[in-house]
Amino acid sequence: MTGPSAHAEPEPFNAADYAARLQRAARSANAAGLSGLLLTPGPDLIYLTGYAPVAITERITMLVVPVDGEATMIVPRLERPDAEETPGATVFRLVDWPDGSDPYAAAAKLLGPGRYALSDSAWAMHLLGLQGRLPDTSFVSMTTALPMLRAIKDDDELDRLAAAGAAADAAYGEILKARFAGRSETDVGNDLASLLRQFGHSQVDFTVVGSGPNGANPHHEMGDRLIEHGDMVVLDFGGLMHGYGSDTTRTVHVGEPTDEERKVHEIVRRAQQAGFEAVRPGVECQEVDRASRAVITEAGYGEYFIHRVGHGIGLTTHEPPYMVEGEHQSMQPGMCFSIEPGIYLPGRFGVRIEDIVTVTAEGGRRFNRTPREMAIVE
Amino acid sequence: MTGPSAHAEPEPFNAADYAARLQRAARSANAAGLSGLLLTPGPDLIYLTGYAPVAITERITMLVVPVDGEATMIVPRLERPDAEETPGATVFRLVDWPDGSDPYAAAAKLLGPGRYALSDSAWAMHLLGLQGRLPDTSFVSMTTALPMLRAIKDDDELDRLAAAGAAADAAYGEILKARFAGRSETDVGNDLASLLRQFGHSQVDFTVVGSGPNGANPHHEMGDRLIEHGDMVVLDFGGLMHGYGSDTTRTVHVGEPTDEERKVHEIVRRAQQAGFEAVRPGVECQEVDRASRAVITEAGYGEYFIHRVGHGIGLTTHEPPYMVEGEHQSMQPGMCFSIEPGIYLPGRFGVRIEDIVTVTAEGGRRFNRTPREMAIVE
Repeated sequence: MTGPSAHAEPEPFNAADYAARLQRAARSANAAGLSGLLLTPGPDLIYLTGYAPVAITERITMLVVPVDGEATMIVPRLERPDAEETPGATVFRLVDWPDGSDPYAAAAKLLGPGRYALSDSAWAMHLLGLQGRLPDTSFVSMTTALPMLRAIKDDDELDRLAAAGAAADAAYGEILKARFAGRSETDVGNDLASLLRQFGHSQVDFTVVGSGPNGANPHHEMGDRLIEHGDMVVLDFGGLMHGYGSDTTRTVHVGEPTDEERKVHEIVRRAQQAGFEAVRPGVECQEVDRASRAVITEAGYGEYFIHRVGHGIGLTTHEPPYMVEGEHQSMQPGMCFSIEPGIYLPGRFGVRIEDIVTVTAEGGRRFNRTPREMAIVE
Repeated sequence: MTGPSAHAEPEPFNAADYAARLQRAARSANAAGLSGLLLTPGPDLIYLTGYAPVAITERITMLVVPVDGEATMIVPRLERPDAEETPGATVFRLVDWPDGSDPYAAAAKLLGPGRYALSDSAWAMHLLGLQGRLPDTSFVSMTTALPMLRAIKDDDELDRLAAAGAAADAAYGEILKARFAGRSETDVGNDLASLLRQFGHSQVDFTVVGSGPNGANPHHEMGDRLIEHGDMVVLDFGGLMHGYGSDTTRTVHVGEPTDEERKVHEIVRRAQQAGFEAVRPGVECQEVDRASRAVITEAGYGEYFIHRVGHGIGLTTHEPPYMVEGEHQSMQPGMCFSIEPGIYLPGRFGVRIEDIVTVTAEGGRRFNRTPREMAIVE
């Protein structure tokens, strides 16, 4: 079978990569008037150190990056051996806390008074523990203070995102050959998951198969419904490959569509194209949402486009920048995000079309290249 | 093959179950001097409503349970159809917020001044958003304010935990027949994962295979190391079955053990037994840790037992009560937790033995029943 090889592993990021990212993060924190950054397990910590604990649990792990001085990671004592093995372990100091001790007292010693940005998904319990011990320290979420920490991808990251997109495209190409009518959404979704893995994904995060009326619920994943001849089917799928995300949507039709189905699909296709054409360095992110939305609103379907047009993608499949009304962040080369307008007709059908796009000096570049026109399946 | 059937699905919890839990939670909150509870996606929300969004994302979903008055759940608008379908949907009011609006302003309207307990794993970003809009409201983590919210299991929950334990035991019985020497830890771990699924687990959370020196790192999961004749091998595995957790550890030996290996294993076995015998209603949780630790300390290995003796289990595999020095919570019938002492000799080998135990009026009852003596494998 043709398609991207699962075996072309990119060179892993090394200690020098992490050192450079840490320095850049500290400079950004300084420029934002922060005292430092507090990174907890998840994409922020992976980005800056390569470290991902076996599980994210109630035991606090946190990397403290002051605007000047040494970065220090505090870990539960029994996870110390894992932390010592991480590729970025040479670029920060490691301290640990044993079970039965107060981890927040130990963590608080690493912070001064001032204002720190904290990973969005840090546990509220940990934040409350720190707040209780540091009355002169204030906290702000990463997305509020430094939303663009991971937003501008370097060339190695862009290569990974392009590979993930190409693999998702290959999976779509294969699923078009599958039988839809008479099979359940779950069966088709499982096929999609297998294809993503076959084309190199290490993790499948979602395989939405929204057939007929289920397609009108944008967060429907998949279910027992048997797909019928005459159904529209929203296929939205993605996961991680070499640590970076894919996320693409195409809406196909089982057999010949009606005129109305053709019309709605074409409106969404034009809306996606308009969003894509709004991508340009220096333009605010909300302009992408506006461009797509204008097409749908002018066609009379504005009330049926009930979500923002897109979200950033990288180490996760949902991250800043968000392409939404009110987002004044300007696009910059290297940013990567989805453009995914949709129309959802309750109880009837839905259409969504989504590509991952990166910003270049010349405008947008798509990481998904399969036809956006409606495919007819069997 | 014999063993628990994967097909004996228990009756799902229904709206009446959730209504009773919500009422009990509100009463507990009142007794704890709280204004109410704030539950975010994860085990707390599943416990009180049965609702689990497709993914836990940056878009806030939160159930507000005031000490008196109606419970209200706020969800992102595009997830409203999912929330409406949840079994507990009849027992709370539903409000939504659209993309592009301020979700914290909308959520803040559901809270009064006062003090609220918030799910431990709520995103720090969401807590900061609420704190910024509610200067007269204070927040405390669930584990601090109401740690026992989910700790006392009812009969239906105990049945599920017993079934999960029996399935894990069946998996252990099968893995003893497998070849160890010459295979990698990952191969054995994959076998364990398949067995857990075969015996009814819907999700495998971890399969630790710590062979030889890797067993001395209690958080080592599994790796490429080839297991050798003469290795101690720590096997610690678990996941979810019918929504409830399993978690058991046995340490086996490939071929004949040395006298020292026998001795260390026997110390850990006696420590586990001593912890088990300390289980009794009204006794503080820390006494279980002390009882196990005393055996190991008296044998001269105290410095090599580097973690607490156990943790609660239920909808998750790590939750209160924690069986640790300093935990003064008294044990009560229906509580369920692990008792898992270990000895870790750096660079050499480790031994851990773990059962899930529930508290009854008469003392402890084990959900794991396989022999705790050292099994010899090939």
